[in-house]
Amino acid sequence: MEDKIIVENELGDWRRTHYSFQISDSVINNVVTVIGWISSKRDHGNVLFVQLRDRFGDIQILVKRKELSENIFDSLKSLKEHSSIAIKGKVVEQKNSSNEFEVIPEDIRILSVSNKPAPFLTQSISSIGIDTRLDLRAIDLRRNHLQNVFKIRNTILNSIREYLNDNYFVEVNTPKMIATATEGGAALFPIFYYDREAFLAQSPQLYKEQLTMAFENVFEIAPIFRAEPSRTNRHLSEAMSVDVEKAYVDYTDMMDYLDNLIRYIIQSVNDKNQIELDSLGTELPNVSKPFSRITYSTLVENLQKSHKYIRWGDDISPKLLKDLFGDEFYFITDWPSSTKPFYVKSKKMDPIAEPNNGDDPRMLSESFDLMYGSLELSSGSTRINNKGDLMDNMKKKGLSHKAFDYHLRVFDYGVPPHAGFGLGLERLLMAILKLDNIRDATFYPRDIDRLTP
Amino acid sequence: MEDKIIVENELGDWRRTHYSFQISDSVINNVVTVIGWISSKRDHGNVLFVQLRDRFGDIQILVKRKELSENIFDSLKSLKEHSSIAIKGKVVEQKNSSNEFEVIPEDIRILSVSNKPAPFLTQSISSIGIDTRLDLRAIDLRRNHLQNVFKIRNTILNSIREYLNDNYFVEVNTPKMIATATEGGAALFPIFYYDREAFLAQSPQLYKEQLTMAFENVFEIAPIFRAEPSRTNRHLSEAMSVDVEKAYVDYTDMMDYLDNLIRYIIQSVNDKNQIELDSLGTELPNVSKPFSRITYSTLVENLQKSHKYIRWGDDISPKLLKDLFGDEFYFITDWPSSTKPFYVKSKKMDPIAEPNNGDDPRMLSESFDLMYGSLELSSGSTRINNKGDLMDNMKKKGLSHKAFDYHLRVFDYGVPPHAGFGLGLERLLMAILKLDNIRDATFYPRDIDRLTP
Repeated sequence: MEDKIIVENELGDWRRTHYSFQISDSVINNVVTVIGWISSKRDHGNVLFVQLRDRFGDIQILVKRKELSENIFDSLKSLKEHSSIAIKGKVVEQKNSSNEFEVIPEDIRILSVSNKPAPFLTQSISSIGIDTRLDLRAIDLRRNHLQNVFKIRNTILNSIREYLNDNYFVEVNTPKMIATATEGGAALFPIFYYDREAFLAQSPQLYKEQLTMAFENVFEIAPIFRAEPSRTNRHLSEAMSVDVEKAYVDYTDMMDYLDNLIRYIIQSVNDKNQIELDSLGTELPNVSKPFSRITYSTLVENLQKSHKYIRWGDDISPKLLKDLFGDEFYFITDWPSSTKPFYVKSKKMDPIAEPNNGDDPRMLSESFDLMYGSLELSSGSTRINNKGDLMDNMKKKGLSHKAFDYHLRVFDYGVPPHAGFGLGLERLLMAILKLDNIRDATFYPRDIDRLTP
Repeated sequence: MEDKIIVENELGDWRRTHYSFQISDSVINNVVTVIGWISSKRDHGNVLFVQLRDRFGDIQILVKRKELSENIFDSLKSLKEHSSIAIKGKVVEQKNSSNEFEVIPEDIRILSVSNKPAPFLTQSISSIGIDTRLDLRAIDLRRNHLQNVFKIRNTILNSIREYLNDNYFVEVNTPKMIATATEGGAALFPIFYYDREAFLAQSPQLYKEQLTMAFENVFEIAPIFRAEPSRTNRHLSEAMSVDVEKAYVDYTDMMDYLDNLIRYIIQSVNDKNQIELDSLGTELPNVSKPFSRITYSTLVENLQKSHKYIRWGDDISPKLLKDLFGDEFYFITDWPSSTKPFYVKSKKMDPIAEPNNGDDPRMLSESFDLMYGSLELSSGSTRINNKGDLMDNMKKKGLSHKAFDYHLRVFDYGVPPHAGFGLGLERLLMAILKLDNIRDATFYPRDIDRLTP
């Protein structure tokens, strides 16, 4: 019954004259047009207090029945939160409002009507299950908590590009539809590519390596696709990867770059997002010093000494790391070659530092993982740039030379020595903001159970 | 025989101390380490002139037999172009070299060896077929022509983000694996998504519209996927799309934004890429004035007047436009609703300006295409934000409400009025630099015939 009287207006020639942050002393007594959605409403009978929210914050609107047409006042009275309205009105001082001003409407347009109450409040951190929220993600993203997360995500993206541009990297884009699996056949999404089978790229690995030939220093920030069968809080089927590759350097240089990049990012967030950090109640990780580096072999020895069950050559599970490392960034370096993909360069054997264990040659690679606590953020390595070595390694890993012909042929023309890393953007956001679930570090998460919205 | 004596060295602890642009008066007589690939070589018997190319340009290296070990000199002598080397040597003045300096090597490392001569010269514009080039794309991209194109591409990307950040847009990323076709079922790539069928997104359309609820002004620069069966010089199966969407505005505002954006981009290229433009021999389009706007109906009338065969409601082929428009940007506005997707808002009928032609209601939409000559660069429109209207339109276009349930449900919560556009990055690059083939506006093109490299 109440709903019947709401009439939705066209936008027509109404346009915002001021964002919320532009309502200040300089516009007192001016008539402004402010536009946004109703984030909350208090009804005192013939007086309504409306919080109008735009991209930057709230504006208080004081609506009195006697000052507006009956029709408009009643419509506004019955309007639910999340509906959008436009207000032409005068700015007055109001010490009790959040930004010390309020707007007294002279005319109002109702631009969109919410017909249902949202199943969560915009102020609440997370009172209900994540699946209910994800089913209505567009409205969920209006919550203060996620607004802060994604404002900080924006800073992170911009600071990554800033850092890489300043260090002479070129932005590239590589194809996401590819003919051959990069790292063996697991975890790929198959596509019908016209009349052929193809796959979604699980990383831009081989392309970014090739591109060091022409551009030396390249980066790409783009989606990667992994048919990840596990249900965890740290895996997505579609994620954003920050891929960096550089000619004429090795993995130790790339650790330096990555270390500096992460510290640059966190400094930028610190400089630009204090309001969001305060609102989230989050303290940024301390990154005053370069990150510590521990070799895989030393780490395994340490674990064995503290009576954990792990053999040299095993992957190191997050569970094992949890007991050793707190909330800090660190590198695990020099992984066994057997744990790394075919394009990773082996380390020259140093018979003193890494004695052969009888039958066990303990072949190491020039590689690293960047960790935060037990969360893997990035993997990097020196890559093989010699065709013969690459072909040998592919054979060892059971990959067909023929399937990679389009890649191998490039090595006939002298691919420069190069190294690089891939950094998971969502995981970095989790680490920096201490988010529990990677799904809240992305807009519309994809996993084995979720393909919509 | 000659090749046998070339020994490839490890990078070891050699690192570049100076890029080519850093070789200047201030380092004369200093010993520097320069690294790059051999872009050309002149052999005068006991003297070699090597052009060493890095990310920024060439450095001349003067190599004399008597000043190096026999072994190294002979290796260098037989080394082919495209091989990578590192030189430790002294900087001296040399009026005859391109940058007025040359480096006299004291020590040399050969970092990668090219075993084959490339089938094209780095200086040539394009002497051979594009397929031969694309088969060796990593080497092809070393050609001066493409180096210039992609340096300008980098400026374009950065200037787009600059403009949109300055105008309060938030960068977003939307899923590329989706459950339902956005604009009907044509031209989609199907995927196996775990146990289900899914598709690659042909645009972020519905997601970016939803995101205006929470962020008002959003943009995404990301790949889109279209199973385009035609073989043309202006279509790719995978392209980069600049998608922009904004709440509380209509299509005329978005034309203003797009117009300003394009002119901002071209101004940035003009400011930052004079060297590349000179080298390409290209003049930038004149964008001193806002772009002209012509309605679809007027354009059709004009075409009919000049005796072209076209009926109102038809799409307008590039061939017809070629005769009317030169190399200029312009908008075609107010397209028939029948030619536009379901989410495009219809225009309010003005019975005087658009008389009903008897049975022909000539329903128009609030839409535009941005053209450059006969090339379509962008499409935009006001979007429907009312659930009932959207459902009616879907029905008209034969789309199932159920398949779009995940999208429609959002409209129960009051989606604000909004408008936006998608801009093809490769086509923009074609227009700005007058490229003949869209394949040279991307790193690794994808089309019906090409899935590798």
